[in-house]
Amino acid sequence: MSKKYVYEFGGGKADGRADMKELLGGKGANLAEMASLGIPVPPGFTITTEVCTYYYKHDKSYPPELESEVKQALAGVEAVMNAGFGDSENPLLVSVRSGARSSMPGMMETVLNVGLTGKTINGLIFKTGNERFVYDAYRRLIMMYSDVVMEKAAGLEPEEGKGIRVQLEHAMEKMKASRGIVQDTELTAADLKELTDAFKAIIKQVLGKDFPDDPYEQLWGGIGAVFQSWIGKRAISYRRIEGIPDEWGTAVTVQSMVFGNMGDHSATGVAFTRNPATGENTFYGEWLVNAQGEDVVAGIRTPNPLNMRNKTEDTKHLKSLEEAMPSLYTELADIRNKLETHYSDMQDIEFTIQEDRLWMLQTRIGKRTGTAAVKMAVEMAKDGLIDEATAVLRVRPAQLDELLHDMLDPAAELKAPVIARGLPAGPGGATGQVVFTADDAAKWAKEGKKVILVRAETSPEDVHGMHIAEAILTAKGGMTSHAALVARGWGKCCIVGCSALAIDVHKKIMNVNGKIIKEGEWISLNGTLGRVYEGKIATVRPDIEANKEYMQIMAWADKFRRLGVRTNADRPQDAAQARAFGAEGIGLTRTEHMFFGSERIMAMREMIIAENVEDRRKAIMKLLPFQREDFIGILEAMHDLPVTIRLLDPPLHEFITLNDQQTEELAKQLGITVEKLKSRIESLHESNPMLGHRGCRLGIAYPELTEMQARAIFEAAAELTGKGVKVYPEVMVPLVGTATEFNHQESIIRRMADEVMKEKGVRFDYLVGTMIEIPRAALTADEIARTAEFFSFGTNDLTQTTFGFSRDDIGGFLPIYLEQKILPGDPFQSLDESGVGQLVEMGTRKGRSTRPKLKVGICGEHGGDPRSIDLCHRVGMDYVSCSPFRVPIARLAAAHAALTNK
Amino acid sequence: MSKKYVYEFGGGKADGRADMKELLGGKGANLAEMASLGIPVPPGFTITTEVCTYYYKHDKSYPPELESEVKQALAGVEAVMNAGFGDSENPLLVSVRSGARSSMPGMMETVLNVGLTGKTINGLIFKTGNERFVYDAYRRLIMMYSDVVMEKAAGLEPEEGKGIRVQLEHAMEKMKASRGIVQDTELTAADLKELTDAFKAIIKQVLGKDFPDDPYEQLWGGIGAVFQSWIGKRAISYRRIEGIPDEWGTAVTVQSMVFGNMGDHSATGVAFTRNPATGENTFYGEWLVNAQGEDVVAGIRTPNPLNMRNKTEDTKHLKSLEEAMPSLYTELADIRNKLETHYSDMQDIEFTIQEDRLWMLQTRIGKRTGTAAVKMAVEMAKDGLIDEATAVLRVRPAQLDELLHDMLDPAAELKAPVIARGLPAGPGGATGQVVFTADDAAKWAKEGKKVILVRAETSPEDVHGMHIAEAILTAKGGMTSHAALVARGWGKCCIVGCSALAIDVHKKIMNVNGKIIKEGEWISLNGTLGRVYEGKIATVRPDIEANKEYMQIMAWADKFRRLGVRTNADRPQDAAQARAFGAEGIGLTRTEHMFFGSERIMAMREMIIAENVEDRRKAIMKLLPFQREDFIGILEAMHDLPVTIRLLDPPLHEFITLNDQQTEELAKQLGITVEKLKSRIESLHESNPMLGHRGCRLGIAYPELTEMQARAIFEAAAELTGKGVKVYPEVMVPLVGTATEFNHQESIIRRMADEVMKEKGVRFDYLVGTMIEIPRAALTADEIARTAEFFSFGTNDLTQTTFGFSRDDIGGFLPIYLEQKILPGDPFQSLDESGVGQLVEMGTRKGRSTRPKLKVGICGEHGGDPRSIDLCHRVGMDYVSCSPFRVPIARLAAAHAALTNK
Repeated sequence: MSKKYVYEFGGGKADGRADMKELLGGKGANLAEMASLGIPVPPGFTITTEVCTYYYKHDKSYPPELESEVKQALAGVEAVMNAGFGDSENPLLVSVRSGARSSMPGMMETVLNVGLTGKTINGLIFKTGNERFVYDAYRRLIMMYSDVVMEKAAGLEPEEGKGIRVQLEHAMEKMKASRGIVQDTELTAADLKELTDAFKAIIKQVLGKDFPDDPYEQLWGGIGAVFQSWIGKRAISYRRIEGIPDEWGTAVTVQSMVFGNMGDHSATGVAFTRNPATGENTFYGEWLVNAQGEDVVAGIRTPNPLNMRNKTEDTKHLKSLEEAMPSLYTELADIRNKLETHYSDMQDIEFTIQEDRLWMLQTRIGKRTGTAAVKMAVEMAKDGLIDEATAVLRVRPAQLDELLHDMLDPAAELKAPVIARGLPAGPGGATGQVVFTADDAAKWAKEGKKVILVRAETSPEDVHGMHIAEAILTAKGGMTSHAALVARGWGKCCIVGCSALAIDVHKKIMNVNGKIIKEGEWISLNGTLGRVYEGKIATVRPDIEANKEYMQIMAWADKFRRLGVRTNADRPQDAAQARAFGAEGIGLTRTEHMFFGSERIMAMREMIIAENVEDRRKAIMKLLPFQREDFIGILEAMHDLPVTIRLLDPPLHEFITLNDQQTEELAKQLGITVEKLKSRIESLHESNPMLGHRGCRLGIAYPELTEMQARAIFEAAAELTGKGVKVYPEVMVPLVGTATEFNHQESIIRRMADEVMKEKGVRFDYLVGTMIEIPRAALTADEIARTAEFFSFGTNDLTQTTFGFSRDDIGGFLPIYLEQKILPGDPFQSLDESGVGQLVEMGTRKGRSTRPKLKVGICGEHGGDPRSIDLCHRVGMDYVSCSPFRVPIARLAAAHAALTNK
Repeated sequence: MSKKYVYEFGGGKADGRADMKELLGGKGANLAEMASLGIPVPPGFTITTEVCTYYYKHDKSYPPELESEVKQALAGVEAVMNAGFGDSENPLLVSVRSGARSSMPGMMETVLNVGLTGKTINGLIFKTGNERFVYDAYRRLIMMYSDVVMEKAAGLEPEEGKGIRVQLEHAMEKMKASRGIVQDTELTAADLKELTDAFKAIIKQVLGKDFPDDPYEQLWGGIGAVFQSWIGKRAISYRRIEGIPDEWGTAVTVQSMVFGNMGDHSATGVAFTRNPATGENTFYGEWLVNAQGEDVVAGIRTPNPLNMRNKTEDTKHLKSLEEAMPSLYTELADIRNKLETHYSDMQDIEFTIQEDRLWMLQTRIGKRTGTAAVKMAVEMAKDGLIDEATAVLRVRPAQLDELLHDMLDPAAELKAPVIARGLPAGPGGATGQVVFTADDAAKWAKEGKKVILVRAETSPEDVHGMHIAEAILTAKGGMTSHAALVARGWGKCCIVGCSALAIDVHKKIMNVNGKIIKEGEWISLNGTLGRVYEGKIATVRPDIEANKEYMQIMAWADKFRRLGVRTNADRPQDAAQARAFGAEGIGLTRTEHMFFGSERIMAMREMIIAENVEDRRKAIMKLLPFQREDFIGILEAMHDLPVTIRLLDPPLHEFITLNDQQTEELAKQLGITVEKLKSRIESLHESNPMLGHRGCRLGIAYPELTEMQARAIFEAAAELTGKGVKVYPEVMVPLVGTATEFNHQESIIRRMADEVMKEKGVRFDYLVGTMIEIPRAALTADEIARTAEFFSFGTNDLTQTTFGFSRDDIGGFLPIYLEQKILPGDPFQSLDESGVGQLVEMGTRKGRSTRPKLKVGICGEHGGDPRSIDLCHRVGMDYVSCSPFRVPIARLAAAHAALTNK
């Protein structure tokens, strides 16, 4: 059988299923599924994503079979709806919508009311008895179509505010002004008829073409526009941020129109089967009477709450659907239950009521906050709707960020003046300087400033600025507006529908209830409560341990994961914090930060300046008591758990960066001439310090340094062991490239351990291992593992050397690389699997070839990145180590890795 | 059968053979071989190297079987010599000598005359009738034994000049003084007898032990001393230099003594079967009458020429062996022929004549100069002694160096005073007048003067002066500093890191260890040895093409090698030189040096300062005609052969290093403020420029740069093609780490080629490929080779990134690494096979997995290093590329690789 390009649905049956998202897109697959479930869905058909792929592979042309398949499917819709597409007496109107595998809200095009022509208008007027409605539909079609299809097809890219749509809107505003009216709804049928004629004239003049009066031309124009929008700027930028592959393509769903704007018995709405912000198990949504769906989503009118339970202080005066249309509400609530049970997950649904008849337009997995994700997953599992593994997989690790996320300091918040309230669209707290455009947000953020992006409403064009801002604040829009959807997806603090704001974008100023706030002034947001404060309020971390559902999901995650999770911590208090977050040890303690205390730095500098071994040893030995105290603190905080301590790593010149005055003082303190000191400092200068005299190269040149550090570690271990504290120090040699380097340092370390145990008369366990952070170490891991008892991949440096990228210097080209897709992402954020990952895999495999029980972990920043953790799981590491606040994320990511790689 | 530890030889037969060097050491194996050949060899036996290994593995003890095997072998010697070890009437004396697989002259211990005791002395006197000889032998035994065996066994390490040997020598001097004599030989038998008693008393006093009077104690003491000396400081240091593994161990050969010092019918000598300096096929050697072997080797007495032909102006008055003992000379000459025919190689032999009887003590492959090696190899092959392949293998590639460069007249050099030493960065010799700036070098040279450019260190701005100078001398920098790299590329004499120089550029003066040398004074350099001489020393120029044997050996080498040999050359004259040396193309033309001309650097700086694409493109396009001319020159010089041209590689700040005055001038020229210029320069600063914005990262950020360079290459190709010159440009993209980077650049380059071919209406072949110099490129070579038509391994940078070593900064730790054997050698000189080599192998294999006919070469400096060339052969590369003066070396090394890896 030849390939099928068109899938029909409607009338209680469908060609497609929910699991055919790759082919039909999320929307098309779910419409098919709903139709099969007997849920009322306007009939229609879906053109597959394969057509999109074909379209871009064949110079924007369609498969030859497509036209007849579409015709046949359209005939099916006509049959179910008992109407004819282009029929002058009983015309069928259709919508043309995009649908990718993964939802990309607002990023692609839609055309509604397709099929309205000079020939069909009168038939529809006759059929509906509502001339005003029909001309309103027609003017909507013209506005949308001329913008989405005609202007784009003409290859025009007008400047902002100069497109055809804006010109048509001007014409409409002008007419409203001439009639002395404010609302669109006040325009009469005659006004609208006149307006559509005016629209057509403008279109002819501006675009040089007539508005098409053939229904099929409209239909194919709409289909083409949707495919075309897959490579629109907004869509590409969204995909880049969300990591959606370009190859997926979009499907196109053509569906018979139903109208929520046919009068007071018509309505439209969107809803979530549970509360997407809190996760609470209540039916949650918004609706508008006599409106089309876009009115709710666009946030132009503030919508009504769906039911009594949804009402807030701000919306309690508005009638809910439950009150206005109780039986339809009951029907909708039944569908809600059916869908949630069927999909075993929270659904985001769209519905329209056309003259007292309920139609479901869409269902899809609903986006949710991290808090909601955790709550829903745990509750659904406890209710038996899903199993524990599914519950764990329901929470994206990154979503936990938001639970661990900053919130406004409650004490400070209590005293701060609330200057406005809005809808709590994205949780957490944030503080920043006000900017009024996405471009300004990007610019200011680049300068290192924290910004809050304030807009009347956001559009997909603002995405880059929204992404970089600390928080988003909009004057208009509801919980399902663009700003709210996007912010929630990112777990970003966001308040929408804050109607008190009067924004002047040109003057870069806003009036908030009479208070003037200019660009650059500080405000603070509580996105969980929807409160806006003037000024800067400190942010604090939430009490995660009080969140029972969080604790439950983490307990389940711990049950499933194989990878251990440690933390990178240099101080006892960080270690304690990480332990509270569930860290099972320390994967990296850097010792260099310990040298910067005022007494210590002096001894360090003496050591650096020393000209012979004796002087150097003398200076170094002054550091021993300090280091021992440091290690006692860390080892005690992590009692009963392993602690990996890395020996001194950075080049020595980092300890002796001085201005002239400091140089003079130090020279005096050291009792040497300024010239001599300067010349020694000068001699430490390196062309490429990243590749210079650092890491174990220091310990080899100055073995007394390694002796001191090893002794300090073991004396600390001995002292704690003597007190009955169980310690497991793991001494880590940095920057090893050859087995000989490691062996040199290892023998010093073991000698120190023997000496200290003998001196103190106690025994304790310890390991000696190395960081794998140089390509050569991974390549010769088999040799190194003959003596090294553990490996810890230092993927920051390994990424630098494998790519030949200096992290300090990539600013010159990385932005270009990301923009031009030379790199899929910043390799310092997510491990480069095909390059660096090969070395990680090779290092692990080769290491275990000579030491099968070699302990392997990672301590680069990638240890807290979910995608990198998946790789760590796959190569068979024992643990990952990350910063304290990423420990919960790593635990969950490790569980995901274990579950998805089964 | 259990393991055999002792191998006997003598009396016309032997247990061992010449090919048993691993077991018997070179000396033992060759003595056995000579014995089997019927050549008169004093009988003896060899204790195998396995005993040495056993000795060090078993806490310096011997295998239990050893003692009886030694006893049995000694009985065999006694039988052949018809004498008894320790026998009071007819005593046998033996020598105890070391013998490693590879000769380590003078590095290990020897004890002679073992077996002389109170009991045997009189027997020997009776037997020889020569009391003086016997006591002289005894005092030699005591001196040697007390030093080599007793002092070392006592664990004493006296300061230099305070050892037992020196004390004994003092006693001897004292006696000579008391007798009023000068020569040792003037001491009478009675004197010597008294002296030996005195010696014994001193030994007892200093070492607290009696001198052993038991022959077996002497024998085992000697054997132990030899084994012990394997880990002596001198031996270890020699092995490190020569690359001899510690695990080999030494054998010990015990052999009956024969004496060249028993009167005027006794003699000793060393000889080479051909002249080791010139290669001439004449018997060449030296001898001394009435002397022991050590007298010749130690150079205490000036030896006589072996035959008439050997006589020189200095030695014509001395009697040759040919004249003094004609029949013995004839016997020796016959043995010479026998040995050379047998071994098919020039032999280095030692002989002793004891009372008119000739004994051969040693034969081994003789060391020779490069010139001699070439001559002998060719002549032996022509004479049918060896085949052509063997002839090729007889010349070490590095030996050719000496045939290719001007050198200081050896006779004059011998007499000249060395005033300083540095690193031998560029081989050969040169003499000239000192100048301290590149501009002065250019000016003086223009006036017809020969100059040597002396700098603290050099930078790319000095290139014009460096090029015109006879030689370059720098105070700082290592073997891979700018000066060293550039000089080596040109085959120019160069010494770097000559720390004794204190240069005052302003006064145009330098202080060399207290000696003041002013501008214009003459100095001479030996760049092969790193020696600086005061004054003018004549240089001699080898005419390589007139050297028929050289031409012959190279012709044979070319026949055997599989690897192609190209050159790295940036200028037409270098290309021509390399072509004359046999280069088969250019493997690397760097384009950055082309930007330093005065007109060009200005455009380059304009380009760097440009703030938008238009200005940048305008500035870049000014460079186009210059670049085109450069490429025409290079491509024309290499007509009919491939030329690989690398696009711009170094970071831009290298083109804009300015002092304040230059900054002001440039700002004026560019028409911008100094502040603006400074801030732009500042913005180019990088923490680790090696890992920064360079290589293809430039061409991706500034595609117009790649466009210009590609266009210049193709316009040059088009112009030459139009003239009928056959050109094969290969455009090389530097520093590629991902396939996407390469593809980005490749499409620009191909577009330029298409444009130029269309514009000019000509067609030519070209390739687009990349350097593999980043670990990630090797790891993902399969992806890169989908579009890249060739790979060239840039092993300089690949070594930097694989090790994480900055070549400019390794001075801080590399010396320690080499000294402590953390590294076996400088990885920038010889490719690190186990680390970097893995990536080279992987890159080649993976690249060919997706493009089986991928052309693969190397253009790092390792391309001229014989050991690295062997690796290149083994991984299956197509060619190596090196600096012009190393082309012959690479050709020969490639032949060696082909022959030894068969």
